[in-house]
Amino acid sequence: MSDPEMSVPETADPIARMLANDAASESLGISVVSYAPGEAVVRMTVRDDMLNGFGITHGGLVFALADTAFAIACNEDERITVAAGADITFLRSTGAGDVLTARANRRSRSKRTGLYDVTVSDASDEVVAEFRGRSVTTNRTYPTEE
Amino acid sequence: MSDPEMSVPETADPIARMLANDAASESLGISVVSYAPGEAVVRMTVRDDMLNGFGITHGGLVFALADTAFAIACNEDERITVAAGADITFLRSTGAGDVLTARANRRSRSKRTGLYDVTVSDASDEVVAEFRGRSVTTNRTYPTEE
Amino acid sequence: MSDPEMSVPETADPIARMLANDAASESLGISVVSYAPGEAVVRMTVRDDMLNGFGITHGGLVFALADTAFAIACNEDERITVAAGADITFLRSTGAGDVLTARANRRSRSKRTGLYDVTVSDASDEVVAEFRGRSVTTNRTYPTEE
Amino acid sequence: MSDPEMSVPETADPIARMLANDAASESLGISVVSYAPGEAVVRMTVRDDMLNGFGITHGGLVFALADTAFAIACNEDERITVAAGADITFLRSTGAGDVLTARANRRSRSKRTGLYDVTVSDASDEVVAEFRGRSVTTNRTYPTEE
Repeated sequence: MSDPEMSVPETADPIARMLANDAASESLGISVVSYAPGEAVVRMTVRDDMLNGFGITHGGLVFALADTAFAIACNEDERITVAAGADITFLRSTGAGDVLTARANRRSRSKRTGLYDVTVSDASDEVVAEFRGRSVTTNRTYPTEE
Repeated sequence: MSDPEMSVPETADPIARMLANDAASESLGISVVSYAPGEAVVRMTVRDDMLNGFGITHGGLVFALADTAFAIACNEDERITVAAGADITFLRSTGAGDVLTARANRRSRSKRTGLYDVTVSDASDEVVAEFRGRSVTTNRTYPTEE
Repeated sequence: MSDPEMSVPETADPIARMLANDAASESLGISVVSYAPGEAVVRMTVRDDMLNGFGITHGGLVFALADTAFAIACNEDERITVAAGADITFLRSTGAGDVLTARANRRSRSKRTGLYDVTVSDASDEVVAEFRGRSVTTNRTYPTEE
Repeated sequence: MSDPEMSVPETADPIARMLANDAASESLGISVVSYAPGEAVVRMTVRDDMLNGFGITHGGLVFALADTAFAIACNEDERITVAAGADITFLRSTGAGDVLTARANRRSRSKRTGLYDVTVSDASDEVVAEFRGRSVTTNRTYPTEE
């Protein structure tokens, strides 16, 4: 972030800027595999400190991975689009060391609202969770500073 | 955890044992305020490393807080109850330093499934998110080791 | 509707006007028990022509009853508020002759959006379904004619 | 149903038997366009008695159409599969005379539970609603009579 020589791509692409500032996704070790308007693929390796009291991946962190994919897929210009809500169904438990991939795809979009499906899979391509996010585009733009 | 003198309560209370092993909630700084069968109150202070690219609390971590409250409220004996799914509606954004409280209450329960409402509020008691979790009770007991 | 002597209450109360025109609820035999801002209670007796192929009440008609309660609870002035979406959990099946009551309560409301919980119960007060509706208030007013 | 000469296909196909007894779908004028394991397409023309107080199709009846598609898609043998719940997002309002088509597709299935997406479109292929149903397979078989 502090290298003045690499500031051009961040300026040009609002998604890149958003990602560069996403401290939560960084602290969860989430990496961005690819993205395009309405789509995103992100990845996370489950760490020991992501397990719940039953020794399986905390559902909140599976949700967080899907939510990051959703945030990338639903933002594509300067206007800020945020999550209005989401539903998740947990299909398979995972554990430490598992590599989870979340793939987001737009299902529909109107002027202000959108619907995105995110499938979370493990390294064997078994589906771990299905997430459906509801987005709302605000009147604010990013970044808000001059 | 390794103090042999305090092992009795953990043995007696499956919830206490579950909480003592919940590394994810611990790493998120979630503290348990209170719990009773079908109920739980938990708390988390939003850290800088919990913010998304827009500088607001990552929705996945708001979900994670609610999910921990849900997990405590839906487990009350040796049988392991897990989340089958959940829906969350985000009502208000929060930021670093905000103290979020999640209050879970059981809405219904049958032999195997349950429904729990979790309200996440900030320090001014403004509602930040409404979560509804769907639980399923497994045939496994906790802990599974001898 | 065309009786000039009874037009005053309909003019005075947008909800009464909305209900007077709700052909779908009328054809389902839904009666309004009570309503107040943010609340509504409605009732329906399950008929033979409301059963699905398994001889139990079609889930869509349980949803329709809850949705009518939701529509009344979320409308309270001239502006038209509609459903953006809803989630329903089915807890108990019912059959012909069962009297179902749906009770809607507002859980939260902002300028444009709202969240309403609707519980559907049978005559023994057993919960049949839990519904959570998401409303959006439009810029249109009711009625739209001059 | 009463023609003894055409009883063979009904006996052979549990879905056909289920549909033949679905009085609710019949009274809503729902016709089955096609079905296969995990899939179904059904259709309904919106009638005057399906409109709500705002003169648009009652959301409960849009849900009912999607729910019938879901029921067909999630049943494929003698065991009875029912809806545990569903979420619907309403994207576009419709009115009397509109022909709505609901297309259901299985997204995942385990031994007892399943997840199905149903898209409801109008005659111009504009999406009216997106529905996601959660199924649970019971231990009962159909029909239960000898």
